[in-house]
Amino acid sequence: MTASDLLSSDTSSRIVTPRTLKGFTDRMPEEALAKSAMLSRLAQVFCSFGYAPIETPHLEYFETLNKEGGQEIQHQMYRFTDHGDRDVALRFDLTVPLARYVVQHRNALGLPFKRYCIGNVFRGENPQAGRYREFTQCDFDIVGSHSIGADAEIVQVMASALQHLGIADFEIRINHRQFLEGYCKSLGLSSKAPAILRILDKSDKESRESLATMLREGEGLTSAQIEDLFKLFTIKEGREDMAFLQDPAALRVNDETAKALDDLIQLFRIVQPLASCRAVCKLDLTIVRGLGYYTGIVYETTLTALPSIGSVCSGGRYDNLTQVFSREAIPAVGASVGLDRLLAACRQLGLLHERPTPAEILVTFGTDSSLPQAHALAHELRLTGKLVEVYPESAKLKKQLTYANRKAYKFVVIVQEEATQSKLSLKNMTTGDQQDVHDAAEITHLMGSS
Amino acid sequence: MTASDLLSSDTSSRIVTPRTLKGFTDRMPEEALAKSAMLSRLAQVFCSFGYAPIETPHLEYFETLNKEGGQEIQHQMYRFTDHGDRDVALRFDLTVPLARYVVQHRNALGLPFKRYCIGNVFRGENPQAGRYREFTQCDFDIVGSHSIGADAEIVQVMASALQHLGIADFEIRINHRQFLEGYCKSLGLSSKAPAILRILDKSDKESRESLATMLREGEGLTSAQIEDLFKLFTIKEGREDMAFLQDPAALRVNDETAKALDDLIQLFRIVQPLASCRAVCKLDLTIVRGLGYYTGIVYETTLTALPSIGSVCSGGRYDNLTQVFSREAIPAVGASVGLDRLLAACRQLGLLHERPTPAEILVTFGTDSSLPQAHALAHELRLTGKLVEVYPESAKLKKQLTYANRKAYKFVVIVQEEATQSKLSLKNMTTGDQQDVHDAAEITHLMGSS
Repeated sequence: MTASDLLSSDTSSRIVTPRTLKGFTDRMPEEALAKSAMLSRLAQVFCSFGYAPIETPHLEYFETLNKEGGQEIQHQMYRFTDHGDRDVALRFDLTVPLARYVVQHRNALGLPFKRYCIGNVFRGENPQAGRYREFTQCDFDIVGSHSIGADAEIVQVMASALQHLGIADFEIRINHRQFLEGYCKSLGLSSKAPAILRILDKSDKESRESLATMLREGEGLTSAQIEDLFKLFTIKEGREDMAFLQDPAALRVNDETAKALDDLIQLFRIVQPLASCRAVCKLDLTIVRGLGYYTGIVYETTLTALPSIGSVCSGGRYDNLTQVFSREAIPAVGASVGLDRLLAACRQLGLLHERPTPAEILVTFGTDSSLPQAHALAHELRLTGKLVEVYPESAKLKKQLTYANRKAYKFVVIVQEEATQSKLSLKNMTTGDQQDVHDAAEITHLMGSS
Repeated sequence: MTASDLLSSDTSSRIVTPRTLKGFTDRMPEEALAKSAMLSRLAQVFCSFGYAPIETPHLEYFETLNKEGGQEIQHQMYRFTDHGDRDVALRFDLTVPLARYVVQHRNALGLPFKRYCIGNVFRGENPQAGRYREFTQCDFDIVGSHSIGADAEIVQVMASALQHLGIADFEIRINHRQFLEGYCKSLGLSSKAPAILRILDKSDKESRESLATMLREGEGLTSAQIEDLFKLFTIKEGREDMAFLQDPAALRVNDETAKALDDLIQLFRIVQPLASCRAVCKLDLTIVRGLGYYTGIVYETTLTALPSIGSVCSGGRYDNLTQVFSREAIPAVGASVGLDRLLAACRQLGLLHERPTPAEILVTFGTDSSLPQAHALAHELRLTGKLVEVYPESAKLKKQLTYANRKAYKFVVIVQEEATQSKLSLKNMTTGDQQDVHDAAEITHLMGSS
């Protein structure tokens, strides 16, 4: 750019302030690398259970997304009119599009059908710490089966997913919507059940007292009803899940609760014997799950060392969701990893080893005449499986070593021209050792042995 | 659902027709699996060159996207007003957001900086065969270097990316924008250069005659000027690139063309010796690249066996793009794989082995009482690294084997309850052989040896 360009008001008027929208964020390389490694591992876990990926568009007809997900989410939708005058919206989750997809492609897909989907969703909610208006969800679902075997498999995928991300201390808390509804019914509170469950759903954030106030003042529950409801928090009291579930007393108060408890017994019979699930699956009769569409067993996952971050993987059975698109109710059960929240958690727990580059070795060189040699050497190193960056241009060695340090390179190759031939050396950035080398094979050997 | 539900007009009025928006599409599992495998391989290649991933939002301020990309794309933008009355749009490529990102985070990033970005972009163009309004781009760029070393590296990444996708027959055609502009200048056509290049850019689709008509009637070129321009199509005539470039005559008509040819010589000196590039990189003096923002070397990639599909990986140098966001011009060079187009091409070329499930083995069982055993067996098989699906529910064996065939499973385990104990057998779906087995280890062994 010339001085006259800098002074030209025409140029300066063109400058647009570089900024992201409120509630949206960029990811820097170290974060994006960590996230991308997590996504690969999750995809591997999903595949290991036979879940195939699918894709649906980010943009849908508004009416497709309109009917589900609760009023709050409806308000948060990015909705607009497109070029063709269509009423459209950005998806706010991956589950409603799945319901649309399954009905639309039912014959080609066949049922039952297991899928995973990794994608971004959009909610115009007021941004909170670590929560954005665009975020990544990783969903896995079994569509087309009423069997508790399917519910039990989702729990296994949840456990395996977190374990493969290197997270050891977590709890998958399991409950049954029909148990909660049956229990409310037994207290004479059937019609108020949805409102009561919405309040109960806040139990991770609100004190027992504050919940009681909401139930009494908001919903008109008596103290006795509240006391009976709050028994759910204490009734298990350290008893082992299976022993508790098989105890015939107390909670089998009507057909609904009995059926729900039998479902839970069947689920625990499948998952309890498995090493991946034994220590992490816990019955918790107070779990609700926020979204309106769950109809059966529900799950939430808490990180033991970081409960404040909330559930990092949740889900449940939703047997009615396809009813929006079809007169037939296709049963489904699934869960979702909130990847951005989990990434933030992993950072807090020190589980991420963040570097701004995926490469292991940097090739540096002093003059443009060394460019062919530097690129040829990198080419050879890549053939041995190494991840190799070539510094983009000739520069002073000091500048290139500063770059190497900033990117946390452990190894740097230095290509130098000397008289008629060139010289290679390998520098270990940790120890500072530098030694002459002859070729890619020697470099690979030295990197392996250090 | 009960009969009364089916008859209720209230229920039927709620049915939403399941459909995607015009120009948008879902991906079925077999396609999405193939695409996801391609994306993993591409990410591996980008990492092998030291490119780190970054993320930018799908949604940006309209003004961020407004200044670049040509008028046509501006019309095709999904633009709307959000809840906060902001003028926003869905991104139409990954390059303009990169320019915004680099200026915004310049200090944290440091320059030079190599990044890749895999993401979806949106263009409301009229859908053509195999082209959608939402599609996936895989971009890789070097920001902050003027060196031809950077241009030469992008060519290597392009070649390596296609080779790692199993594509052997392709050509990377390379040219220089400044050569084209200098050559136009030498013909006295400087002011018309942009319009002329736009016409030249259609040479893959339009006949030479039709181009001549456009140049004569649209831009008022004389027959002599058109003849001189068309020399670019024939002047190389089978000569080897380096030999041709070093020939001092003919094309070194002014400083611009001479400088451009020197750049190209430097690039070919770097890439020609490399096994990955030698056979695929070709000088082509007629390549333009559509988008307005290129300023130097440009590339296009054609599949030899499927030229009609157009360029599957294109790019070039764009040294002025950040000027929209900053008074400083930060140089950059990069390219982009059009993944959806490439996926369609790979299918046509028979390079995809599509299956609707990633799993290798299906565990079937007859009754709910076998659920714990079926899941325990699958759990053990996964520990040996196998990808294992458990059929979601108890069902007739025939139904489960139909499912296995539809999903192209080669192996099925059958769990059967017999009197007091259960029996396992392994069925090879290809040969029809079935044999009794005792445990996961035996299954793994037999799968490996078949």
